[in-house]
Amino acid sequence: MTNKLPINSSKFKQYREKYEQELFNRVIPFWGKYSPDYKNGGYFNCLDQDGKIYDQTKHVWLQGRQVWIFSKFYRDVEQKQEWFKIARLGANFLKQYGIRDDRRVYFSLSPEGNPLYLQRKIFSECFYIMGLAEFSRASDQPKYLKEAKLELEKVWEWAYDWTKVRRPNYSGQMSTQSLAVPMILLNVIAEVAAEDTNPYQREIEDCIRNLQLHIHPDTQIVYETVTSEGDFIDSSEGRLLNPGHAIEAGWFLQHWAQTLQRPSLSETAANIIRWSFERGWDTDYGGIYYFLDAKGYSPTPLEWFMKLWWVHCEALYAHLLNFYVTGEIEDWHAFKQVDRYIFQHFCDPKYGEWFGYLNRQGDVTHRFKGGPYKGCFHVPRALWLCWRLLQKLEKF
Amino acid sequence: MTNKLPINSSKFKQYREKYEQELFNRVIPFWGKYSPDYKNGGYFNCLDQDGKIYDQTKHVWLQGRQVWIFSKFYRDVEQKQEWFKIARLGANFLKQYGIRDDRRVYFSLSPEGNPLYLQRKIFSECFYIMGLAEFSRASDQPKYLKEAKLELEKVWEWAYDWTKVRRPNYSGQMSTQSLAVPMILLNVIAEVAAEDTNPYQREIEDCIRNLQLHIHPDTQIVYETVTSEGDFIDSSEGRLLNPGHAIEAGWFLQHWAQTLQRPSLSETAANIIRWSFERGWDTDYGGIYYFLDAKGYSPTPLEWFMKLWWVHCEALYAHLLNFYVTGEIEDWHAFKQVDRYIFQHFCDPKYGEWFGYLNRQGDVTHRFKGGPYKGCFHVPRALWLCWRLLQKLEKF
Repeated sequence: MTNKLPINSSKFKQYREKYEQELFNRVIPFWGKYSPDYKNGGYFNCLDQDGKIYDQTKHVWLQGRQVWIFSKFYRDVEQKQEWFKIARLGANFLKQYGIRDDRRVYFSLSPEGNPLYLQRKIFSECFYIMGLAEFSRASDQPKYLKEAKLELEKVWEWAYDWTKVRRPNYSGQMSTQSLAVPMILLNVIAEVAAEDTNPYQREIEDCIRNLQLHIHPDTQIVYETVTSEGDFIDSSEGRLLNPGHAIEAGWFLQHWAQTLQRPSLSETAANIIRWSFERGWDTDYGGIYYFLDAKGYSPTPLEWFMKLWWVHCEALYAHLLNFYVTGEIEDWHAFKQVDRYIFQHFCDPKYGEWFGYLNRQGDVTHRFKGGPYKGCFHVPRALWLCWRLLQKLEKF
Repeated sequence: MTNKLPINSSKFKQYREKYEQELFNRVIPFWGKYSPDYKNGGYFNCLDQDGKIYDQTKHVWLQGRQVWIFSKFYRDVEQKQEWFKIARLGANFLKQYGIRDDRRVYFSLSPEGNPLYLQRKIFSECFYIMGLAEFSRASDQPKYLKEAKLELEKVWEWAYDWTKVRRPNYSGQMSTQSLAVPMILLNVIAEVAAEDTNPYQREIEDCIRNLQLHIHPDTQIVYETVTSEGDFIDSSEGRLLNPGHAIEAGWFLQHWAQTLQRPSLSETAANIIRWSFERGWDTDYGGIYYFLDAKGYSPTPLEWFMKLWWVHCEALYAHLLNFYVTGEIEDWHAFKQVDRYIFQHFCDPKYGEWFGYLNRQGDVTHRFKGGPYKGCFHVPRALWLCWRLLQKLEKF
């Protein structure tokens, strides 16, 4: 971190208080009130604007993530019994119903915990691990961490030998790699290892190396999909950019750069956040696009032009972290720009939590607060991370 | 068909000439010029606004559909050698590379025909059948029809015992059925059987019965997904409506009602087109929504509010067909309403073919003319169907 800051401490206080209020008065109470299923365990995650359950499916990504949030907050913010109970409700539901004998974790469950669907991907497993690891520490029960570590071994195996898990490979396919895999693994390892990263040194280096294959400094682009050697692929898939994802990868990498004390990695991390924000910002209507094509063709996903809450959550924290690390005023301005967009578009002062999906112009397109891919995670995580960092900045 | 028409014949002529020009001067030439791959066979289907190839993947749905269009036009419109050659280019590519030993048909192929991906669905198979059946008639080569009939037998088996093809079933899942299956099968059977529907009587009745389970006259709703008994399911999936799909089902059913001479089925078919149009039309900005929720919740697909070309293609022909069958002036007005929206928003006078995707306000969001799900099919099929029907109306 730099040793001079171009911003007055009262500014940090102002943002810190704003986030504190949003997080503890309007975001966490929404999930605490509407999501727990005290009858069957776990959480309802398909919640309408006002918290009403519009679908009873329990999506496992969101179960694991909510366990992580409530466990983390119990440990880090305040030892509220309500928070602990909510964390336990999800952790036990997950452990009982989420995982099957071959250690694969379901994507979705019925309200009673019966399996509905299994993806040919490793992400359900990753959020299962994150939830249980954090709950283990909150509950001081080592068995949950043991379970998380056991599952991480399986995920590691599957992530690099996907023949057992993912879609089969066909002869016309190129050998590619996806940004999501090293990214999520770096995040999961950080959660499982906590202070003790020693047992995962090889895995950490491997993930950092693989993640860096997606970063092309010559064009200042972070590609979602590259060849296994890191080369650009000139197809719709190879040209597809997901600026929010690259920004999230940036702050994951920055955390590791700080942990491992690597200035050059820290610079890379700061840069990919700036490049992706610069490229992803919609100069006409504001907000960050969901997808772009590196050569300016129309991205093929229908929703490419939409503005998603999680993208802006990642950008909010990433820019504040950049500012904390570099002290550059441009990073602070980028943080303020994202903050302004968020509080003008995503917040819902009436019922709390944030809307998830806007059209290009910034109007809400989906009124629900929770859906198959949106739950109690990105909003509280970003606000909590910013809140903690702003506290540090205030005291600087 | 009714025996009085409330519209002057010159009106029909005006539309007939407009569609004739659009179809033969601006739509078919686009595909004829830019899509054929004379080197490897088959068609490039990812074409930018001006016809430039932006991705070389060959999507099998679109290969089969384009074979169907060029074969059909060669037979029905004019025996142009260019059209025949294009049809043959796709039919042979499909037969050589599209299907594997177990009779499953790939979803996508490399430009050289190497497999890229196989869906756990039966739709690639259906378009393979349609293409080959029509090419058999265009080329007067029975072996292609034999191949299509053989494949239809497999698809029939898979459609009702999906354990071999589709995603596995899990214990929490309800037994459901999807509108797409009886719909596409009715279409495929019509294409394979042509005049000789006798061998498929059991299958036709089965599909009509299954399709009718999705139609709920009490609420005037056509559900995409119902229980195997046809009951409404109160979940995001069960409430999901796809008005364009229901409208397409309407005209498929109307064709069968005419073939089988069933007035009550004809009335049902006309009704589901009207109900779905009424419900699906965006009264604020015009156009038909892609998805809706039957109870007014936000549909979970991110693109629900978008206006898609194929939805409007189906509606254009369906309303004209309704008018042809019923003689009701309201059906004619609905036809004109869709025509107006299409020619104001989807057409591209500069390069031909239509844009595929608009935002809710009706602005083009994706500039390409061909993509993974848009090719040489809905636009020429709808224009050709309308053109033929307008000719009949003119002479009425």
